[in-house]
Amino acid sequence: MYPTFKTLLLLLLLLSHSITPTSATHHRHPLDPLTPSEISTVQRVISTSSLASLKPLTFHYVGLDDPDKPAVLAWLSNPTSAPFPPRRALAIIRAARQTREVVVDLARGTIARDRAHIGHGNPMLTLEEQTAACALPMKYGPFIASVRARGLKMERVVCEGFSVGWFGEKEERRSLKILCFYAEGTVNFFMRPIEGVTVVVDLDEMVITGYRDRVVVPLPKAGGTDYRTMKPKTKEKHSGVRKGFIVEGHMISPHRRPVMYRGFISELFVPYMDTAKEWYYRTFFDEGEYGIGLYASPLVPTKDCPANAGFFDGYYAGQSGRPVKVERVFCVFERYAGDVSWRHTETGIPNRVFTEVRPEVTLVVRMVSTVGNYDYIIDWEFMHSGSIKVKVGLTGILEVKATPYTHADQTTGDDIHGTLLAENTIGVYHDHFITYHLDLDVDGPENSFVVSKMETMRVARAYPRKSYWTVVRETVKTELDARVLLGRAGPADLVVVNPNKRTAVGNQVGYRLIPEGGRGTSLLSDDDYPQIRVAYSKNEVWVTAYNASEKWVGGLYAYQSQGDDNLAVWSLR
Amino acid sequence: MYPTFKTLLLLLLLLSHSITPTSATHHRHPLDPLTPSEISTVQRVISTSSLASLKPLTFHYVGLDDPDKPAVLAWLSNPTSAPFPPRRALAIIRAARQTREVVVDLARGTIARDRAHIGHGNPMLTLEEQTAACALPMKYGPFIASVRARGLKMERVVCEGFSVGWFGEKEERRSLKILCFYAEGTVNFFMRPIEGVTVVVDLDEMVITGYRDRVVVPLPKAGGTDYRTMKPKTKEKHSGVRKGFIVEGHMISPHRRPVMYRGFISELFVPYMDTAKEWYYRTFFDEGEYGIGLYASPLVPTKDCPANAGFFDGYYAGQSGRPVKVERVFCVFERYAGDVSWRHTETGIPNRVFTEVRPEVTLVVRMVSTVGNYDYIIDWEFMHSGSIKVKVGLTGILEVKATPYTHADQTTGDDIHGTLLAENTIGVYHDHFITYHLDLDVDGPENSFVVSKMETMRVARAYPRKSYWTVVRETVKTELDARVLLGRAGPADLVVVNPNKRTAVGNQVGYRLIPEGGRGTSLLSDDDYPQIRVAYSKNEVWVTAYNASEKWVGGLYAYQSQGDDNLAVWSLR
Repeated sequence: MYPTFKTLLLLLLLLSHSITPTSATHHRHPLDPLTPSEISTVQRVISTSSLASLKPLTFHYVGLDDPDKPAVLAWLSNPTSAPFPPRRALAIIRAARQTREVVVDLARGTIARDRAHIGHGNPMLTLEEQTAACALPMKYGPFIASVRARGLKMERVVCEGFSVGWFGEKEERRSLKILCFYAEGTVNFFMRPIEGVTVVVDLDEMVITGYRDRVVVPLPKAGGTDYRTMKPKTKEKHSGVRKGFIVEGHMISPHRRPVMYRGFISELFVPYMDTAKEWYYRTFFDEGEYGIGLYASPLVPTKDCPANAGFFDGYYAGQSGRPVKVERVFCVFERYAGDVSWRHTETGIPNRVFTEVRPEVTLVVRMVSTVGNYDYIIDWEFMHSGSIKVKVGLTGILEVKATPYTHADQTTGDDIHGTLLAENTIGVYHDHFITYHLDLDVDGPENSFVVSKMETMRVARAYPRKSYWTVVRETVKTELDARVLLGRAGPADLVVVNPNKRTAVGNQVGYRLIPEGGRGTSLLSDDDYPQIRVAYSKNEVWVTAYNASEKWVGGLYAYQSQGDDNLAVWSLR
Repeated sequence: MYPTFKTLLLLLLLLSHSITPTSATHHRHPLDPLTPSEISTVQRVISTSSLASLKPLTFHYVGLDDPDKPAVLAWLSNPTSAPFPPRRALAIIRAARQTREVVVDLARGTIARDRAHIGHGNPMLTLEEQTAACALPMKYGPFIASVRARGLKMERVVCEGFSVGWFGEKEERRSLKILCFYAEGTVNFFMRPIEGVTVVVDLDEMVITGYRDRVVVPLPKAGGTDYRTMKPKTKEKHSGVRKGFIVEGHMISPHRRPVMYRGFISELFVPYMDTAKEWYYRTFFDEGEYGIGLYASPLVPTKDCPANAGFFDGYYAGQSGRPVKVERVFCVFERYAGDVSWRHTETGIPNRVFTEVRPEVTLVVRMVSTVGNYDYIIDWEFMHSGSIKVKVGLTGILEVKATPYTHADQTTGDDIHGTLLAENTIGVYHDHFITYHLDLDVDGPENSFVVSKMETMRVARAYPRKSYWTVVRETVKTELDARVLLGRAGPADLVVVNPNKRTAVGNQVGYRLIPEGGRGTSLLSDDDYPQIRVAYSKNEVWVTAYNASEKWVGGLYAYQSQGDDNLAVWSLR
């Protein structure tokens, strides 16, 4: 056994120090990246060798030449006695317009191997050659004429390099296509492409070998594109949610547009897969039979929710009809997980570098329901962007079955319907189907359901490019058509739109339903009694017209229900 | 437009205060849950009505009777002049063994509607009846005999109620099955089921109507099951990562078992879907053509990474071969997002309540690469459980195309290969295919790839339960068979195991590959030049035998490559 994380840590340590590679007694790892000293050694060795006469000479890659994995593993198992695998560097260079792979022995300071690459393909671009190529149009007559013909000023033109790819060409220079943008009135020049103008540069000759001004297209306006004018919402450290929580909190401002009227967990079906007499009926409806609210657990401050959370009590009616209080039944907190909401670093404008970073702070509303052995951590997360995330964490204790078995080898040939977790203990296979009821009112109550499919198209005429995908949108007409099996019908977005609203430029307004993990439909047979009671579980998404009585997908009277009042039945009506 | 989040906030406010429902001048929301006063009103109204003569009378649900949605929306649009929708409660009760739905007008304190439920199914269980039912076996002779016959002490027996479901029975009592556990030597009684003993209780009569002691099964041991003995790792507030970061940090201890030798992004293919002359070739290889490391952006402290992060510099070789420093090229931090690693609340042992909650703290290693317009936030997250998460956040600036169009209506009948984001600005459709190369060495370098499929099985004989699913494991033999299209072959787990290792009870040791969102394969035609260069992108997962030369799935020489050195080709060899 050898440490794997320690590997990572040594790596981190060494990156912050310069360590000369000749000292074998330093604490190093064979997979450490090259130090700046080692990189300098490679540069010196190659440029003082006979390769230096092959001009131009450019370095396209210099990195660690992977040591033999068995040698590395041997050293990791025995760092005090096994030999430290020798450090070597791999340099991919262009020398006199030929790609070469040069391996340098770092300890000896010599070239260990040098061979030309004779296959297809070229090495990675260098930043310097892109910068040099992007400067060429600035002094190129036809380009200057194109810019002026569009009424633009050369001083505001910024260019970038676009890789040319391969489209069946037989003989090919190592080229780069240069496309240009206009950085006037905004640093976000990407929003202002000078469309229709292409410059082709031969990278080895560093000359323009092709130029085309094909069409004049209006330049998009600068207004509203500069991201630097938006004040970051969290310039100061993020503030916590105050207990005794007020509506006027600066973090929590009223949302101006409706999104969802109401959302809740409609049913939570948990079928077990053991058919023994004591197990076959374990097909729980944790919502309709037991009640997620009834089983809500009081939250533990600083543990269930962070220190800045506010807590709220809740009530349900007990069997006597009298209210029963659940303390701290849910919490609300601002979450800062160290993540980024949006960022960009712009280096494309010569002599200027802009960086804008906005940390991500979200609002979380959480409760925990402990239905017997399982604890469900139920979160609603609200993002600045307007996105809403629903998450359920499954934790607590597994439901296990006692068995005479004490070792998995004893179970060969016997389906134990689970995993032998410990002696005499089987963790039985089961599922959790958590069904959310979301009454979406995007910008108002009249909404439609649109499926946006990505479809492959062939390019009509003979052309370097033969295919692409485009989006075909279909508004779903009936509830039966709106049953969705995620992914089965090919890649598609599911969108709830307001058909009566448009953005300023005429696009639909809507919310996309984005599934993340947790996919799946019931594998029980349609005629199996538990499956009859949850027939809806054969599709992951159902979209239905608003009907005030259709709340509980497994039926309002789920206990010993017979399936005649479930979502699948409603949709047939 | 009316506020939606303000709804939520009012809701939260009111939960923490008792507000009598008769006061219309209080700031309330029509969808507020019932207050304890309102619940008490319902209890009083019903138990002083003629319904009270129907005994036994039990309350199974008391909640807000949904007000008319249009009335709610009308009030939300105009809270000062529109009428506040009247508050009503819905109570589902059992009265003389009949289920009834009773609607109570809260302002008037009268019953507005009372009707019997005559369909199938029963209301939610109450906590009180479950407790009462669970007490019955404790005084039931045959059960006491079963317990003693197993050498167990009645004082340590704990019982729980298990919903009976429906298996085609015509006439059915409202029953509950009681299963019991042994809480000796541990509070985690779920791990010590008294298997094979079933008690059936008629909930309305509250008597035992069925009993079976079918088989004696060994009781699992108590040792190692009590979760209270594990010291929570973060009993104190979580500590931050210190700069100048040491290996001996208490949070970051060397991992004792190997998991992965090396992991990295092997290629990042970004094809655009516009076939115009200036766009058809935009099929970038952000790793092999441009270089994720070359385009790494210096991280901004407290913004790109949280305040407790440690930063590390990095180096690459420029075109001259000389080292170029990137300051703060990656950061390492402990993440506490306010989430829970594990928790459980135990209420099943009479007169005792245990709660154990462990907050989740993880280790994040992050870098950002800004390849032109896009910023990629690349995270590796390490969990206490041993799980490793890879995440890439896509942010920055979109690549847009200028166009004469200023409104979407002008584009009817024309496929603009994207969305009109603003006047003269098309956001062009595109994909990002981020391919990770993970050299997994789970417990050592000899690993196998296992696909665990969940398959539906029919129960052999006539029986209440007709189906279940079980797991069929298949070790993949060839690389061709190991190409995986996620989800296409039915639900399955992908597991990398060490075939030479077993757990103490004989199970395999492995790591499961869990996809979360971000699925998808290339939609380009197989004969399209860019697709030839990334032929591997037709499958989401490839598993290959270790080969030191197979690092870059798009080929080492990706720039103008022709596809003869990509992962799909290697697997055919």
